[in-house]
Amino acid sequence: MKRIGIMMNASKPHALQVAKELMQLLCEKNAFVLLEQDLASVLGRDDCGIPLKDFPSRVEIVFVLGGDGTLLGVGRELAGAKLPILGINTGNLGFLSEAEPDNLGSAVDRVLNNDFCIEERMMIDAECIRNGEIVHRGTAFNDVGIAKGSFGRIVNCSVSMDGMFLGSYSGDGIIVSTPTGSTAYSLSCGGPIVWPGFQAILLTPICPHTLTSRPMVLPAESELEVRVSAAHHEMGMTIDGQIGFEIHEGDLIRIRRSQNQTYLVKWRERSFFEVVRKKLHGDEKG
Amino acid sequence: MKRIGIMMNASKPHALQVAKELMQLLCEKNAFVLLEQDLASVLGRDDCGIPLKDFPSRVEIVFVLGGDGTLLGVGRELAGAKLPILGINTGNLGFLSEAEPDNLGSAVDRVLNNDFCIEERMMIDAECIRNGEIVHRGTAFNDVGIAKGSFGRIVNCSVSMDGMFLGSYSGDGIIVSTPTGSTAYSLSCGGPIVWPGFQAILLTPICPHTLTSRPMVLPAESELEVRVSAAHHEMGMTIDGQIGFEIHEGDLIRIRRSQNQTYLVKWRERSFFEVVRKKLHGDEKG
Amino acid sequence: MKRIGIMMNASKPHALQVAKELMQLLCEKNAFVLLEQDLASVLGRDDCGIPLKDFPSRVEIVFVLGGDGTLLGVGRELAGAKLPILGINTGNLGFLSEAEPDNLGSAVDRVLNNDFCIEERMMIDAECIRNGEIVHRGTAFNDVGIAKGSFGRIVNCSVSMDGMFLGSYSGDGIIVSTPTGSTAYSLSCGGPIVWPGFQAILLTPICPHTLTSRPMVLPAESELEVRVSAAHHEMGMTIDGQIGFEIHEGDLIRIRRSQNQTYLVKWRERSFFEVVRKKLHGDEKG
Amino acid sequence: MKRIGIMMNASKPHALQVAKELMQLLCEKNAFVLLEQDLASVLGRDDCGIPLKDFPSRVEIVFVLGGDGTLLGVGRELAGAKLPILGINTGNLGFLSEAEPDNLGSAVDRVLNNDFCIEERMMIDAECIRNGEIVHRGTAFNDVGIAKGSFGRIVNCSVSMDGMFLGSYSGDGIIVSTPTGSTAYSLSCGGPIVWPGFQAILLTPICPHTLTSRPMVLPAESELEVRVSAAHHEMGMTIDGQIGFEIHEGDLIRIRRSQNQTYLVKWRERSFFEVVRKKLHGDEKG
Repeated sequence: MKRIGIMMNASKPHALQVAKELMQLLCEKNAFVLLEQDLASVLGRDDCGIPLKDFPSRVEIVFVLGGDGTLLGVGRELAGAKLPILGINTGNLGFLSEAEPDNLGSAVDRVLNNDFCIEERMMIDAECIRNGEIVHRGTAFNDVGIAKGSFGRIVNCSVSMDGMFLGSYSGDGIIVSTPTGSTAYSLSCGGPIVWPGFQAILLTPICPHTLTSRPMVLPAESELEVRVSAAHHEMGMTIDGQIGFEIHEGDLIRIRRSQNQTYLVKWRERSFFEVVRKKLHGDEKG
Repeated sequence: MKRIGIMMNASKPHALQVAKELMQLLCEKNAFVLLEQDLASVLGRDDCGIPLKDFPSRVEIVFVLGGDGTLLGVGRELAGAKLPILGINTGNLGFLSEAEPDNLGSAVDRVLNNDFCIEERMMIDAECIRNGEIVHRGTAFNDVGIAKGSFGRIVNCSVSMDGMFLGSYSGDGIIVSTPTGSTAYSLSCGGPIVWPGFQAILLTPICPHTLTSRPMVLPAESELEVRVSAAHHEMGMTIDGQIGFEIHEGDLIRIRRSQNQTYLVKWRERSFFEVVRKKLHGDEKG
Repeated sequence: MKRIGIMMNASKPHALQVAKELMQLLCEKNAFVLLEQDLASVLGRDDCGIPLKDFPSRVEIVFVLGGDGTLLGVGRELAGAKLPILGINTGNLGFLSEAEPDNLGSAVDRVLNNDFCIEERMMIDAECIRNGEIVHRGTAFNDVGIAKGSFGRIVNCSVSMDGMFLGSYSGDGIIVSTPTGSTAYSLSCGGPIVWPGFQAILLTPICPHTLTSRPMVLPAESELEVRVSAAHHEMGMTIDGQIGFEIHEGDLIRIRRSQNQTYLVKWRERSFFEVVRKKLHGDEKG
Repeated sequence: MKRIGIMMNASKPHALQVAKELMQLLCEKNAFVLLEQDLASVLGRDDCGIPLKDFPSRVEIVFVLGGDGTLLGVGRELAGAKLPILGINTGNLGFLSEAEPDNLGSAVDRVLNNDFCIEERMMIDAECIRNGEIVHRGTAFNDVGIAKGSFGRIVNCSVSMDGMFLGSYSGDGIIVSTPTGSTAYSLSCGGPIVWPGFQAILLTPICPHTLTSRPMVLPAESELEVRVSAAHHEMGMTIDGQIGFEIHEGDLIRIRRSQNQTYLVKWRERSFFEVVRKKLHGDEKG
């Protein structure tokens, strides 16, 4: 009997309805279902609620109801576990979700019949080092951003790769992203779209002062070190644009490939390019 | 006898030496010199120190020692007065300064002999309106920026021009700039270079989420209204990247051409394009 | 009695049906109608066919059936005459057309009742000078392009404005465009969107070798001179991307504002920004 | 005794002087030297001249005197052979050359002492298929370009990757490039800089009509198929911007990783990023 976990973004009202339907469908098919405890409580099923952190030991696959933002958070939380994640998109079309609420039955059948593949997505670790000590640490699914605040003027990021000086970026900051993150913030800053199964690290300057500063595609195994300085003191480091840390003049940010990955459930026939076209081009015809 | 005012950025040590030389040169030529009071005090000449705000009634022309940043501040402070400003560049090559410390003698001669022309540069006024009341107000020489903070994710700016809905920009924010400001922050965000004598308002999105959002060149007489909203609450409005105001969800920013202008002293033979090439291309040969 | 001319792009089959309906509507309302002679012949109405070049002396307003491409050609042909042009869009949404075939009745009524305004759109003249003689000449509504051929590698354009050296562009070439042309080829090359009623000349480099070469917004009254050179000999000058001339190493292209303008019929309530949003953003809701 | 081949771009006069010096240095060190036959003839040393195509069987390493353009040609010619190539840059700073004429002695010593490393650079093969037959074929070191001619307006490239529809690009064309080619034409079109040792294929649209068309980084093992169409008939395919083929409406271009690679001689201490900074930023200080 397949053991399934369900996780939901409680702030999306539509998701709750989908959660109910999903639970019913899974029970009809005799799957064993556990719910993230907040969701369990909302559904009045505290009996099958457990904390997200216990999912790895208790379930074989996780359904995540929400948008790309919800999936990013789950991806980070489950990063250490090799637990496949299936996104059910209850918001706008997303890059990470694979199923739509309209096809819930089909999604359930495929999962129970093992009719899916798993895409391994690389993640990156970031550490902020101050006076020789690690003061912040995080693992990103999309990207690590280093940026000035709204009143700040210019942050300077001096970047090296594996000990070689790479370049110095003055402007609004830089983004270091995974292939998955290439379609997120990096794209808005002029970065390329990277095939998601690829192993690479993307370095994209944000509104660089120097017009010759350009996005760079670097080996996945490279270690980046970023030394920050700014005329004004308001600077931040963000993980997937969701978690923020204050950083100081002279801090060193070290970024490298994470030992963890995210395991996304994907149907075979659906194409990354189709999502790119639909999301970016507004092209429904493909 | 020509009445000259001198203003300096006290934080630039090199500028002080230039100030001394300039004062001596002007005295030798029998000009009447007044100093901004902080500079007067540093030079031990409190006898000829007056506040910057009194310059318009007391002097005919102002020498500003510093970089483009210093000149922006002086331009804003003297915006109401039709006082010609000559920038003596004590830092890196600038777009606004016209003279270099090496040619101080020549600059003084030209000014005393009225051998120069005056470029009128348009400015823009910004008001932030909250619950029907103006809570912040400023006049910009370069630009008015509306931007998210370092931890914020997306700010949405819904812009109208003269009452027509222009477009909605989601991303890091927008910049509304004068032609003078086109070579500043707007350029880093992908905006065009606008001939400085032009009358136009430039609207440049900052890292827009929607790839089809593009810089726009609008009539100088248009009135822009920007309604801001954000998922996170950290947002700011900046004047020339130098003065910052906190703004709130739902604030309305109104931007229009200022009645004031800045009057820059320019030699006839020096070309805007030459500075563009030198600054941007690193091309010393022209 | 209003004298109306009708012109059509004969290669668009749908346009013919619209032409018939339009003619019938106009006749019912007792307008006096003349047809461009090719259209007249297709409709079997040679009795009211005249050459397009005779329109200025015979009609007061011209209906153009087709897309933006058709309208560009008519605009150039009628450039010398102050003849209002109304585009009826029989293809995709266009920037220049104002009416859709669905609203033909309403368009006819507005024209006959003088319920419209006229937007004057500036044009630019280009001359190609070889050994002191003008060898090609044209007037553009959108843009003048100077570009390498498909096998050529790099064309170098050395540009001056009013006798001042502006800059040197190595790459695929340059585009000099009107505000109207800012939403055409120039936009694909990274140029800004210019408000169409504006008076300005836009200079946009095409895939420049030097990353610091950027689009420039220049005064409408400036005269540009472009000296071309290329390692390979295949180079062309195009007018609105529709008319092509071969150009040679060392040719001088002179571009300036035309004395002629195009007079577009516009309803008051329709907005340029609405078309920008629909065309570029795929946003039908506005 | 090390067997060395020398190849030169005969059109660069400075290169000849360097060739003489190089030959003398190598002879002094008792290397066995063969010259490409055109060079041999210019130097009056027909006795040691052989065709370039015989280099693989006769020499162990090739010195190439010229610029990046010369090296591209040699790389293509020697693609099948695993022959290390050392570029001696007689023109501007290049991405491919490793040595400068000023350090000829040191370069010779390092080569003779095997004090160098070899960077393997991937290449791509392109075939143009018409009515089921291959009509053109080429191997590119930098890139394969598919582009409209100077009078053409728009070429449409419909691209698939491994049988999946990737997207449709309307505009000036597309470039498919290797990591090595990322700093060439692709960069001018807005592509990212790809670390040269990387295994990837880069697809960059040239001035795309659709603003949402963006550069893509794809797996090195992917096979791209491009179906071309155009309103006007002038279209070309280029190999490294140096070899051109005419292509027709409906042609299919198939591009995939080549079985061949280029083997560049590199000193260990020189960094790719240093060249990027110097070439693009004009920054000599690094």
